[in-house]
Amino acid sequence: MPDFQKWASAHQLRIEAVLKQLLPQADLAPQRLHAAMRYAVLDGGKRVRPLLAFASGELAGAELSRVDYTAAAVEMIHVYSLVHDDMPCMDDDVLRRGKPTCHVEYDEATALLVGDSLQSLAFQLLSEQALSDNPSSQLQMIKLLAVASGSRGMAGGQAFDLASIGKQLSLPELEFMHIHKTGALIRASVLLGAQCGNSLDAAQLGKLDHFGKCVGLAFQVVDDVLDAEADTITLGKTAGKDADHNKPTYVSLLGVTQAKKMAAELHEEGLSSLSEFGMQAQRLRELADFIVIRKY
Amino acid sequence: MPDFQKWASAHQLRIEAVLKQLLPQADLAPQRLHAAMRYAVLDGGKRVRPLLAFASGELAGAELSRVDYTAAAVEMIHVYSLVHDDMPCMDDDVLRRGKPTCHVEYDEATALLVGDSLQSLAFQLLSEQALSDNPSSQLQMIKLLAVASGSRGMAGGQAFDLASIGKQLSLPELEFMHIHKTGALIRASVLLGAQCGNSLDAAQLGKLDHFGKCVGLAFQVVDDVLDAEADTITLGKTAGKDADHNKPTYVSLLGVTQAKKMAAELHEEGLSSLSEFGMQAQRLRELADFIVIRKY
Repeated sequence: MPDFQKWASAHQLRIEAVLKQLLPQADLAPQRLHAAMRYAVLDGGKRVRPLLAFASGELAGAELSRVDYTAAAVEMIHVYSLVHDDMPCMDDDVLRRGKPTCHVEYDEATALLVGDSLQSLAFQLLSEQALSDNPSSQLQMIKLLAVASGSRGMAGGQAFDLASIGKQLSLPELEFMHIHKTGALIRASVLLGAQCGNSLDAAQLGKLDHFGKCVGLAFQVVDDVLDAEADTITLGKTAGKDADHNKPTYVSLLGVTQAKKMAAELHEEGLSSLSEFGMQAQRLRELADFIVIRKY
Repeated sequence: MPDFQKWASAHQLRIEAVLKQLLPQADLAPQRLHAAMRYAVLDGGKRVRPLLAFASGELAGAELSRVDYTAAAVEMIHVYSLVHDDMPCMDDDVLRRGKPTCHVEYDEATALLVGDSLQSLAFQLLSEQALSDNPSSQLQMIKLLAVASGSRGMAGGQAFDLASIGKQLSLPELEFMHIHKTGALIRASVLLGAQCGNSLDAAQLGKLDHFGKCVGLAFQVVDDVLDAEADTITLGKTAGKDADHNKPTYVSLLGVTQAKKMAAELHEEGLSSLSEFGMQAQRLRELADFIVIRKY
């Protein structure tokens, strides 16, 4: 088994190539929209969600070509949410993945349509014939992604986030918000990768789901710590904006030390739910390490 | 066969009840987002797309309970596009279906999330087990809706529209724009209703598709005429805004008389592609009449 850095780099290159191919070409009409979709999606990000899908796909013995579609779909949902979240009526941010945000580079109307179109494209990809030889399980995957993305998932978490600005949240409230806002799509990425294969039973998928839940929450706790501690150049996005926006975070609620401790505990809990899978879950473990120990 | 007005009223009531049931309840968290989704979707509009789905579902012998999901899905896609189009960065409109637009009644960030969540919900509905006993055809339906909604369909048409403001378009360019912006979802509504049943072959679906294309374009031509001729109270949305926004329309390109003639020709062409279906297509014919002869 090659070491994690090599595996991650190879799969980051792979998803980049897949996304390049699956996104509409920039010379196809409407050109400006397609160019903006490619600008927003390509050449940026850690691709954490696709990597999780690839890792759980490996665990479930899935064909790599099937995981490609799934990994691209979750990344498109993720990028659509970033593009919309960065807009002036939401977080009003100008920097993302080290580049001007989509509405700054293009314009607000185009950014709105970029997000809308990426969401449609994600569901189109999950409905492709090439994805699965089991249409019923494919329908379940579409439903899972739709629920994880919608008002009871990611978009709902964003609504909680908006409603919480300037308020004092309790720890359970903050957790509830992040389990939706960031956690839902990370969980979905783990599960959807696994569902590209056929080798796991419901109990095993339940363990993966719990892993995804822990890692998803740890991801957000680490994000909050990084936002408080790192600088803008390292992050590739504006640092310190949570405090500027008077947003409740794990750091504002617990302090940096306790927040780090919480991330470590979630990390541990996530790893323990992978115990039965042995070496086959090694990539998922390494990804959990990567998510909790990252610097940006 | 009851007369068209009765049929249309009964099915408008039916889709209203279906939407009420399928939308998340307003007391479910996040409450403000769910209330805003219900505000945007319920109690408004002619429900042209659901009616088209019901009519073609009848033609194809589909179970009504299956068409319910499909009709709700196309209406949710339609409403999401209205909510986003009305936002300040797009058409900046304050009145829709006789009520303040979503971002006026709530706020811009909520309107953005309402549109995003309605799109997810539409795909969730089309992935429900209850919809079909044929998962492969259900996957095709999802793909059809995704393509019709995305950058090569409705959202792409919106991008063309933005790019055309203040420009002189040729008639083919205007047609290209509207075939995407309005036409794609209307065509999809006709086809998806029919695909809830199993009785039509590919050639017959092709005829329905051509009907949908003609009616979709006629719908837009009539919209342009109404925008130029009707008043705001009758329309339930701001009248005369195309001219105000210096947007190319069929009226600005052809004049009212020729635009009306074009609508009549498209109407005729749409009806002729239904000829083989006899009385079973009567509802679709009546809907074509309704779309072309409407006053709002």
